[in-house]
Amino acid sequence: SIQFDFNQHSHRRFNPLTDSWVLCSPHRTQRPWQGQEEDNEVDTRPSHDPTCYLCPRNKRAGGTLQNPDYKSTFIFENDFPSVRQDQPSLVDDSGDDLLKVQSVRGQCHVICFSPLHDKTLADMTDAQIRPVIDAWINTYESLRPKSYINHVQIFENKGAAMGCSNPHPHGQVWSTEDIPHETAQELKNMRAYRKRHGGGSKCMLCDYVRTETDNDRKAKSSTAASALASSVPSAPVRAAVATTADGSRVVCENDSFVCVVPFWATWPFETLVLSKAHLARLSDMNEQQKEDLANILRRITCRYDNLFNCSFPYSMGVHQAPTDGSEEHEGLSHLHLHFYPPLLRSATVRKFLVGFELLGQAQRDLTPEQAAKRLADCSEVHYKAV
Amino acid sequence: SIQFDFNQHSHRRFNPLTDSWVLCSPHRTQRPWQGQEEDNEVDTRPSHDPTCYLCPRNKRAGGTLQNPDYKSTFIFENDFPSVRQDQPSLVDDSGDDLLKVQSVRGQCHVICFSPLHDKTLADMTDAQIRPVIDAWINTYESLRPKSYINHVQIFENKGAAMGCSNPHPHGQVWSTEDIPHETAQELKNMRAYRKRHGGGSKCMLCDYVRTETDNDRKAKSSTAASALASSVPSAPVRAAVATTADGSRVVCENDSFVCVVPFWATWPFETLVLSKAHLARLSDMNEQQKEDLANILRRITCRYDNLFNCSFPYSMGVHQAPTDGSEEHEGLSHLHLHFYPPLLRSATVRKFLVGFELLGQAQRDLTPEQAAKRLADCSEVHYKAV
Ligand SMILES: O=P(O)(O)O[C@H]1O[C@H](CO)[C@@H](O)[C@H](O)[C@H]1O
Ligand SMILES: O=P(O)(O)O[C@H]1O[C@H](CO)[C@@H](O)[C@H](O)[C@H]1O
Repeated sequence: SIQFDFNQHSHRRFNPLTDSWVLCSPHRTQRPWQGQEEDNEVDTRPSHDPTCYLCPRNKRAGGTLQNPDYKSTFIFENDFPSVRQDQPSLVDDSGDDLLKVQSVRGQCHVICFSPLHDKTLADMTDAQIRPVIDAWINTYESLRPKSYINHVQIFENKGAAMGCSNPHPHGQVWSTEDIPHETAQELKNMRAYRKRHGGGSKCMLCDYVRTETDNDRKAKSSTAASALASSVPSAPVRAAVATTADGSRVVCENDSFVCVVPFWATWPFETLVLSKAHLARLSDMNEQQKEDLANILRRITCRYDNLFNCSFPYSMGVHQAPTDGSEEHEGLSHLHLHFYPPLLRSATVRKFLVGFELLGQAQRDLTPEQAAKRLADCSEVHYKAV
Repeated sequence: SIQFDFNQHSHRRFNPLTDSWVLCSPHRTQRPWQGQEEDNEVDTRPSHDPTCYLCPRNKRAGGTLQNPDYKSTFIFENDFPSVRQDQPSLVDDSGDDLLKVQSVRGQCHVICFSPLHDKTLADMTDAQIRPVIDAWINTYESLRPKSYINHVQIFENKGAAMGCSNPHPHGQVWSTEDIPHETAQELKNMRAYRKRHGGGSKCMLCDYVRTETDNDRKAKSSTAASALASSVPSAPVRAAVATTADGSRVVCENDSFVCVVPFWATWPFETLVLSKAHLARLSDMNEQQKEDLANILRRITCRYDNLFNCSFPYSMGVHQAPTDGSEEHEGLSHLHLHFYPPLLRSATVRKFLVGFELLGQAQRDLTPEQAAKRLADCSEVHYKAV
């Protein structure tokens, strides 16, 4: 009888952060594609674009304000915010179980990563990325004491395919009165994990870092794995083999961070950047960790660009402790960043998360291990610099 | 002090089917858009395209098979399925809490809605749509007894913007050994609702149909609402007013089905088509209900096309009882269809669910009531027929 093969047979993998499953159909990579193709915008941007509302000295989108002649990062309040500080609040005391509503106050910021219109994180140096991290920290820390802000979501939409309307290198910060769904879910699932594993300061992501990087365990399990693979042909054993930690999902790492294609990745080349130490937030990093974060961000974004020789689109963001002052949330939170890039096969062919994904469950074609290998094989020298 | 205004102020609404929140920022509709625009494919398709692998008599994508000369619907197994019947299964007995995996067997079908290449549900007649419903029922019923199929997901991706690679009118059916995440979540939340509300045969969606359509309650609450609105200026009261049932989210209805923009809609013009009777599945419909479903499908898709005078893209699908034989699932399930369309402002400007949405929480601009009014104002005579 045929053995189960993770590179050929459909399976689902569990995402412990979101408590949901993703269907993996590795044989489906052979499917021909006749659908929509993205533009591969050949990158001939000037370093200063007089029509860009984010470049230094230019007029902003609102029309009245003008940008300063900034030299590294530049932070300002979004001219079209999704949440605002100055609105009445609303208490829903209707007790209605079907029509539940709450007011949400907050603030929205834009952070320009560089004055140069034609840069991206992928072709900035570690030293140039470092001020972006400082800007994230300063924004978070300045919002943290505000009573109407309980969560600060830092993110970047890069590329037209990810809804970015301006190619000037920038990210956003949406800070809200509520703790958004994704963070709330992660905290809930990390709390349950801690409880299941004896409480205390047990952390799901600390364990996951260890699973993906521990060299002892790696050596042990790969010996065990090959022994088992060659001697015992039953399906359960194959499962054990494929799911042991063998470093096959690691893309790159340094002393403070590891970047993996998570075991449960949904997007074709999704990655997760994990702090190796249990840090609640960006501002808990020491100098070395800040430098290491800049370093890993450059390296993963550069690998992404080199994968299909294009400016690789993605949405990316930081998950860290909410600013609600809860000690429990603080203890549970483990600093990490998610990268959600849409491309599947080339600079122009993306994965659509549509019908089955929206109505049923996330679905992917290549395996996370195949994606990790592709990214691990990419150079960390940017293709445009070669 | 300013009163809370649902058309101006940010708030979040609870989705009881998914147990998650959506942020609604109505003032954000004023934001200018400089980002990616979709193609507005002017629709000049022939009724038979010799290069289409779904048209009657043509060669299929695989290369070897040929389509029959079908006259209404045509069902076949997907040549590039995401799940297959003939694969080994896998038992994961590793006990690992972080790297959890299961094999998934199943079958994937394609259903052509019409032999005519240039048709869509929106410009078919009720009588032409009726065989599509029969095809869905036949497919579900033929898969239902199979031991390796516990759930049948019927869906349609329409339009290049929703990952559809062939404009020939067709949908898909992915049938799996597992119950996919979205259905599992809905069942879980409907179970909890039933428990909270006294058990028995209490149903969240029966209650929701009543909330959105009950004319008595409508009359009562709108009297109460205007009385309250004019006399008492406090915020809690405003909440009660805005969230009572007043018919403001109904797009269209007939004796058996109602189509609403749900109170918790995420996509700008998302709709939910609900069976008025508590039916577990499509095959539980009587003749009248089948005709009424064809009727409501034509009317909502026609309204969609008329909204921006284009062939309106969407992902759509049916949620009904799993085929796992569970009596509990059968009793909980309430037949409904979701429409998830991406367009926001015009035939070419879509809503991107990206950075904040992926990392934080779903976010929308116009309110569900505004969207429902726009759709309710659209004609049910197709713009191309006028
Ligand atoms: O099978 P199709 O129509 O080629 O593929 C489309 O629908 C599938 C199911 O929603 C998705 O997984 C694909 O990403 C999408 O392109
Ligand atoms: O604010 P931006 O960059 O114009 O808007 C972009 O990011 C937002 C946050 O993810 C999304 O809600 C928008 O749909 C997207 O176009």
